[in-house]
Amino acid sequence: VVISVVVNAAQTEAILFGADGVAETLPEGAVFVSSATMDPDVARNLAARLETSERLYLDAPISGGSVRAAEGALTVLASGSAAAFAKARPALDAMAAKLYELGDEPGVGAAFKMINQLLAGVHIAAASEAVAFAARQGLDIRKVYEVITASAGNSWMFENRVPHVLDGDYAPRSAVDIFVKDLGIVQDMARSAKFPVPVAAAALQMFLMTSAAGMGRDDDASVARLYARITGTDLPGEPQT
Amino acid sequence: VVISVVVNAAQTEAILFGADGVAETLPEGAVFVSSATMDPDVARNLAARLETSERLYLDAPISGGSVRAAEGALTVLASGSAAAFAKARPALDAMAAKLYELGDEPGVGAAFKMINQLLAGVHIAAASEAVAFAARQGLDIRKVYEVITASAGNSWMFENRVPHVLDGDYAPRSAVDIFVKDLGIVQDMARSAKFPVPVAAAALQMFLMTSAAGMGRDDDASVARLYARITGTDLPGEPQT
Repeated sequence: VVISVVVNAAQTEAILFGADGVAETLPEGAVFVSSATMDPDVARNLAARLETSERLYLDAPISGGSVRAAEGALTVLASGSAAAFAKARPALDAMAAKLYELGDEPGVGAAFKMINQLLAGVHIAAASEAVAFAARQGLDIRKVYEVITASAGNSWMFENRVPHVLDGDYAPRSAVDIFVKDLGIVQDMARSAKFPVPVAAAALQMFLMTSAAGMGRDDDASVARLYARITGTDLPGEPQT
Repeated sequence: VVISVVVNAAQTEAILFGADGVAETLPEGAVFVSSATMDPDVARNLAARLETSERLYLDAPISGGSVRAAEGALTVLASGSAAAFAKARPALDAMAAKLYELGDEPGVGAAFKMINQLLAGVHIAAASEAVAFAARQGLDIRKVYEVITASAGNSWMFENRVPHVLDGDYAPRSAVDIFVKDLGIVQDMARSAKFPVPVAAAALQMFLMTSAAGMGRDDDASVARLYARITGTDLPGEPQT
């Protein structure tokens, strides 16, 4: 079993098919577990290429970030053949608090992950828009955090990311450019399916603006800083010009 | 104490200043508690007009909907003078599970409510976009609900509204046109403050499209039906043409 925890499809492809790639160096019948977030079509393609060489592919993107990874508390969204599941399950059980088995075709796990990323990205952008707008309205944003997390406007991302804004702490737990990539994949999938996703498209533009303003490698809550800088709004830790 | 639970500023104004309005029929020193969702400037204006007649105004929008209202389990976001709070507090304690006291100026409660509505509206639109896109990708949307509610893409609204989509049940618990109104107020506030809110603007357009397609009085999860109808995607209870 090889578990590949890299950022994107290109890195996964290099591990599989680059010089000394796993497609040739792994024993036949071994399983390659791919956890990168990628377009489901790309996952299907990588799986098909690997399986021609008699190695198995498990499409198994993860959710939860580095803190939960260290605790063995990830959520794994897996799909692939019964043979791939059988070989990979003990390793996955060790790293995952929740293992979802989503079907016998690679690409399904990737598609579930992209639906999650659509929502996660929109929620970070909305949290950033809302908290900066609240500051602009003169509201106490610590009180806003208290009220919203107890109200119907709450999201997992609001609860998790807004504390970074309250603390003025933009050290990257997950970087802006991760959502530039992931919401970009959502756009590609949606355009390919002729499916309009205007809310996700607006969120992607906010991540792109934040990256363009020089914050691509900072924490993704930096979208709030972008709103503050554009509008001259005070946020903790942000010098006003 | 009069507690006014109506939909909007116009209805509130009619109760206060229309024929036989509260501004004249209430004893002097009594308190009028306004729970409608409205622009903070309008709340400030109504309060100022009422208080010239020696009655008290408490700006106290509520969150939670009709089910929680019946249980006395609402969240109340209140601001107003100490005198208004003193008179209204026993009644508010009876109807609210949580009473937030947000300051001594009317308008602050209204502003907190609008921040909540910005997030709530975006999250409903995003949930609708995501679940319809998942159906279009061929995913099992009941499984999507299970996975997302256990993942970082979750929101209070996703958890609450997507079951309506799964059941194909669009009887209105909260109607599309409520968010046409509330996200409309957010746009007015933001434009007035010269503050861009592109994510909320995209969500508002989806509520407007859903209302324009004849679903304005249906449940707000109908935004998912709009995506499905536009794209020819199967959703429970929706006949395909």
